[in-house]
Amino acid sequence: MDTTKHIAVLGGDARYLEMIKHLTKSPNTDIKLVGFDQLSEGFSGVKQLNMDELELDSLDAIILPIPGTSEEGLIETVFSAEKIQLTKEWFKKLPSHCLVFSGITNDYLTNSVGEAGLKLFPLMDRNDVAIYNSIPTVEGTIMIAIQNTNFTIHSSKVIVLGLGRVGMSVASKFAGLGAEVFVGSRKKEDMARSMEMGLDSFNINELAAYTSNCDILINTIPALVVKDEEIKTMQSHTLIIDLASKPGGIDFDFAKKRGIKALHSLGLPGIVAPKTAGEILGIVIEQILIEEL
Amino acid sequence: MDTTKHIAVLGGDARYLEMIKHLTKSPNTDIKLVGFDQLSEGFSGVKQLNMDELELDSLDAIILPIPGTSEEGLIETVFSAEKIQLTKEWFKKLPSHCLVFSGITNDYLTNSVGEAGLKLFPLMDRNDVAIYNSIPTVEGTIMIAIQNTNFTIHSSKVIVLGLGRVGMSVASKFAGLGAEVFVGSRKKEDMARSMEMGLDSFNINELAAYTSNCDILINTIPALVVKDEEIKTMQSHTLIIDLASKPGGIDFDFAKKRGIKALHSLGLPGIVAPKTAGEILGIVIEQILIEEL
Amino acid sequence: MDTTKHIAVLGGDARYLEMIKHLTKSPNTDIKLVGFDQLSEGFSGVKQLNMDELELDSLDAIILPIPGTSEEGLIETVFSAEKIQLTKEWFKKLPSHCLVFSGITNDYLTNSVGEAGLKLFPLMDRNDVAIYNSIPTVEGTIMIAIQNTNFTIHSSKVIVLGLGRVGMSVASKFAGLGAEVFVGSRKKEDMARSMEMGLDSFNINELAAYTSNCDILINTIPALVVKDEEIKTMQSHTLIIDLASKPGGIDFDFAKKRGIKALHSLGLPGIVAPKTAGEILGIVIEQILIEEL
Amino acid sequence: MDTTKHIAVLGGDARYLEMIKHLTKSPNTDIKLVGFDQLSEGFSGVKQLNMDELELDSLDAIILPIPGTSEEGLIETVFSAEKIQLTKEWFKKLPSHCLVFSGITNDYLTNSVGEAGLKLFPLMDRNDVAIYNSIPTVEGTIMIAIQNTNFTIHSSKVIVLGLGRVGMSVASKFAGLGAEVFVGSRKKEDMARSMEMGLDSFNINELAAYTSNCDILINTIPALVVKDEEIKTMQSHTLIIDLASKPGGIDFDFAKKRGIKALHSLGLPGIVAPKTAGEILGIVIEQILIEEL
Ligand SMILES: NC(=O)c1ccc[n+]([C@@H]2O[C@H](COP(=O)([O-])OP(=O)(O)OC[C@H]3O[C@@H](n4cnc5c(N)ncnc54)[C@H](OP(=O)(O)O)[C@@H]3O)[C@@H](O)[C@H]2O)c1
Ligand SMILES: NC(=O)c1ccc[n+]([C@@H]2O[C@H](COP(=O)([O-])OP(=O)(O)OC[C@H]3O[C@@H](n4cnc5c(N)ncnc54)[C@H](OP(=O)(O)O)[C@@H]3O)[C@@H](O)[C@H]2O)c1
Ligand SMILES: NC(=O)c1ccc[n+]([C@@H]2O[C@H](COP(=O)([O-])OP(=O)(O)OC[C@H]3O[C@@H](n4cnc5c(N)ncnc54)[C@H](OP(=O)(O)O)[C@@H]3O)[C@@H](O)[C@H]2O)c1
Ligand SMILES: NC(=O)c1ccc[n+]([C@@H]2O[C@H](COP(=O)([O-])OP(=O)(O)OC[C@H]3O[C@@H](n4cnc5c(N)ncnc54)[C@H](OP(=O)(O)O)[C@@H]3O)[C@@H](O)[C@H]2O)c1
Repeated sequence: MDTTKHIAVLGGDARYLEMIKHLTKSPNTDIKLVGFDQLSEGFSGVKQLNMDELELDSLDAIILPIPGTSEEGLIETVFSAEKIQLTKEWFKKLPSHCLVFSGITNDYLTNSVGEAGLKLFPLMDRNDVAIYNSIPTVEGTIMIAIQNTNFTIHSSKVIVLGLGRVGMSVASKFAGLGAEVFVGSRKKEDMARSMEMGLDSFNINELAAYTSNCDILINTIPALVVKDEEIKTMQSHTLIIDLASKPGGIDFDFAKKRGIKALHSLGLPGIVAPKTAGEILGIVIEQILIEEL
Repeated sequence: MDTTKHIAVLGGDARYLEMIKHLTKSPNTDIKLVGFDQLSEGFSGVKQLNMDELELDSLDAIILPIPGTSEEGLIETVFSAEKIQLTKEWFKKLPSHCLVFSGITNDYLTNSVGEAGLKLFPLMDRNDVAIYNSIPTVEGTIMIAIQNTNFTIHSSKVIVLGLGRVGMSVASKFAGLGAEVFVGSRKKEDMARSMEMGLDSFNINELAAYTSNCDILINTIPALVVKDEEIKTMQSHTLIIDLASKPGGIDFDFAKKRGIKALHSLGLPGIVAPKTAGEILGIVIEQILIEEL
Repeated sequence: MDTTKHIAVLGGDARYLEMIKHLTKSPNTDIKLVGFDQLSEGFSGVKQLNMDELELDSLDAIILPIPGTSEEGLIETVFSAEKIQLTKEWFKKLPSHCLVFSGITNDYLTNSVGEAGLKLFPLMDRNDVAIYNSIPTVEGTIMIAIQNTNFTIHSSKVIVLGLGRVGMSVASKFAGLGAEVFVGSRKKEDMARSMEMGLDSFNINELAAYTSNCDILINTIPALVVKDEEIKTMQSHTLIIDLASKPGGIDFDFAKKRGIKALHSLGLPGIVAPKTAGEILGIVIEQILIEEL
Repeated sequence: MDTTKHIAVLGGDARYLEMIKHLTKSPNTDIKLVGFDQLSEGFSGVKQLNMDELELDSLDAIILPIPGTSEEGLIETVFSAEKIQLTKEWFKKLPSHCLVFSGITNDYLTNSVGEAGLKLFPLMDRNDVAIYNSIPTVEGTIMIAIQNTNFTIHSSKVIVLGLGRVGMSVASKFAGLGAEVFVGSRKKEDMARSMEMGLDSFNINELAAYTSNCDILINTIPALVVKDEEIKTMQSHTLIIDLASKPGGIDFDFAKKRGIKALHSLGLPGIVAPKTAGEILGIVIEQILIEEL
């Protein structure tokens, strides 16, 4: 019996190189790459193919790029000029047990995979992946904070908005660097956890009372929470770093008008630690393969 | 208009003294105590009454002891010989806006309060209270660990089972003291959070592989997770501390048979820090009074 | 050539059991015990002797009890009724390369060893031993603080006097448990280090300004620093723990008069973690044997 | 009686702006600036002068730039085109109680001040200043580590060489970010302190045994400690950051030959946090003025 797992990686960016490297170390794994023809270095034991060379009926899993597909089924191929489009029909040719991995999904991808009767794993939706990714996200935030201020994080007053998967990591690591951290959230239990962690906390409704005495504000809440009222009392040296996905949680126009530096810093794991970000994906995909196949 | 909040405290233990003290500092609050007649020290501005002196129709809130009532409606009065029984009829005499506080509840209490059309607040069920209480719980656990070992927590290998409200606090504080902490849980996201916190982690299914090399095992999971298989390979100096409510998560009989010291340490907040435990209740009740009245 | 190291352990307490155990694991080490005849358990490969059975001329090292000798040369033998007295003549019979270990020393011991032309290692004087021992000392202090207060260390205000070998460990671990730590010292660099560690700090001269708002005061300074002026403004719940060797740094009489609980807690490593305390000695003696022999 | 302190600041860089701002807040302080004529913004209540307008006999203190003077007595004036040279005669015109501040000193400055019978304070030689400055130094190091690796500091293996004023701060903050830190030093007490801090440690002699399994090496030892033997076994992704003053502690040529990235990162406080660096100087100068005048 063939216990080898046949996996095709279709496109992807720098993070995928480390993920592929991780998967190649997994026993009984056969990996084919499509959309990596411009890659200078190869991976030992890994074959590069064109889309039409791929034998779909032998595949156990396909790994799409982090953004999944466009609404037209197009996928990002950073390391190739090849244009790859995945039609609904294409998905239907995959074996019924074939797992489909992506970072995030959209209607087109969800529907295409669903109609083909396959299982989709949008990895970025998973709590474990979000928490692992919070680590490089925090380090990117630290780097940005150091680069964009003329004072130290140590001893500065830092507001962190949200104590979710990213917020908790941000708050604890900034505190670890010696900042005085104030966590703003809407849940009473978040205030209790902040207190247990040795941090100050407040109800997000009262944010405006805190911004006037703040050196760095870091937002992780994907909703407009930092508005004119909160911005207008800020001191001129205050730095805002918004980590929340587009459109973010800051009134950037108002901040600009008031001369408050506000940065919308997205995609930090891929920027500051593509190797770690890729490893995280490799580890999680490997675990899912073991459980599901 | 009378904006004073009329509150009756019916019974309670040492923790309630600090809670009462906290509430007396709240503005516009009138507090009556029933079941505290043997208390040596009084509270300034607080009246002591008998059950029959209480004017029920003016009450805005009643605070029952932590255990609530017995299935017969009896309540614990540590500071009184008076026997107090709360009948279903009694609850019906309370005004419809009157809030009922207790630590935990049972069928009798839930039904009695429900049938009277009142709102019940079993405080110990709240996430914020559970997290605040995890702090004295951790300190009790630390004290027990130091008392019951002849080695330091620092540099010892400590397994913490569960990364819930108590588990997370236990794990982070033992790590803060220099222990090498291994967190066992069933959720992948808990493994990710453990890793972010700098702790080792494993799936609770694999616990037996970890117990042979463990100095202290602390359980917070309210389910039988440490069984003969997990105990039999433990070294003779290993200390087990079970924090989970009765019946706990340890096969205590088997541990005893193997000569492994296993302590079921319950009610730690009230034991090691009754003042803090009372303050927590005072703070949370005060918040609820503001929101609900 | 005989490369075996011949070591005699003369007396000692519970800590010495772990130290002996550690040394027996060292290769090429032959250990003789004197003054352990009432010990129930033995050590495999270790011989118990009487004083007169000891072949002095083959010894490479002797290990005396932690307190060294009395001024008459008597040594403490917790595990024996044998009275052992080490005369100046006795030391002169030891080979010239023989190392002499003790915890502390006094004039008699220093002179006796010196006149015999031998090298004395009073281990407790060493910085590394003092720092290693600070770990169990801290844990003992934590235990005492938890046992003797009705509030948590977390969120309490803790003054630590001295940022030496013990003080630094105490300060960092109490902060790790969530206390708000204020370090009092006389050196500007200690204030800088406290600040870097995220702690508050003040000049010890200004101590009186800090004691009125303090929940726990921990002293490590071996000089009278907490006098009536500092004690008289303390709140009644304040707990003083003095770690400094006799006579300590607290006016205990005045504290008593004011009803302030003040504990002089000495010898904590041997009390809370004799195994760890013994291991520390074993590790350090082993290192010295390698370097010196 | 005139209790006003008359201070002249002669040259200096961006850090000095914050220092001046800090000193202007000190009561009874009159500040004159020389060498700041190209500064766009002024300081309220602070006068700008030319060298020859300065009334030397009324001065209580002069503050020279961080580098002091050249061996010819020239000083750095970043905010001026004026060439300022301080002759030995010039120093002799200062009142005998006038304090002279600089960052570091050299033979010329030490001699000139000494011959004039004045007291020189080379601030960077002070332990407290070195420790305060270690904070921005650490943050600069963190920034560089994040910028120059494609993996996270969290979970990476970091060697820190030296546990002095900078090394201790570096080690603790990298550990706080989740790195596995190994401290290399020559003192046994440093190994004990590392262990107490929860870090691994080794004798610097054995460095070569550790470099093969290291992701980031940070040196604070001002002596050649990382030589070919230590570099040749490093993995290609290893990053070396040398913080030690020129010539540093790394064989940079050999590292280059082996393709190991090695950065000599000096002057970090002034680069990443000039405001904090200036504040540190302001605080320390203010303290000295109080004590000495
Ligand atoms: N910049 C980057 O590189 C990067 C990296 C990773 C993630 N992200 C982004 O960061 C954001 C946070 O991610 P996450 O994983 O931490 O998400 P999460 O775990 O869902 O946390 C979101 C937090 O926001 C709070 N929140 C949501 N809506 C709110 C509202 N209207 N008012 C107050 N609080 C509200 C949530 O509180 P409740 O618990 O009360 O709902 C929670 O604490 C997302 O937008 C994510 O895409 C960015
Ligand atoms: N000793 C004391 O003084 C003291 C003080 C406070 C609380 N307690 C007790 O401590 C226990 C924990 O309290 P808590 O507030 O931390 O509760 P919690 O937040 O609900 O945490 C319970 C933990 O146990 C895990 N768990 C539950 N059932 C499990 C199972 N069958 N297998 C594996 N994991 C399981 C949960 O994991 P999931 O998230 O996967 O469900 C969670 O991590 C309770 O029994 C509570 O009464 C004792
Ligand atoms: N209770 C126990 O179980 C236990 C365990 C271990 C040690 N100890 C005892 O604890 C004490 C401290 O030990 P250690 O190893 O930390 O000693 P250490 O490293 O010498 O520290 C002593 C501290 O006290 C300061 N100090 C000394 N005299 C002072 C004075 N007159 N005014 C202000 N500060 C002063 C020192 O500051 P400078 O640096 O300015 O001199 C230093 O910070 C000793 O008495 C030791 O015997 C007790
Ligand atoms: N890059 C920057 O921005 C920046 C900022 C601040 C400082 N610095 C520089 O960083 C370096 C360290 O500063 P610091 O304040 O930490 O100095 P420090 O407190 O004197 O520490 C130096 C450390 O190096 C050790 N050491 C010295 N010579 C050694 C040798 N031959 N072998 C082994 N260890 C040795 C010392 O150990 P012992 O205790 O055993 O002597 C000590 O641990 C200096 O060169 C300083 O100028 C750079």
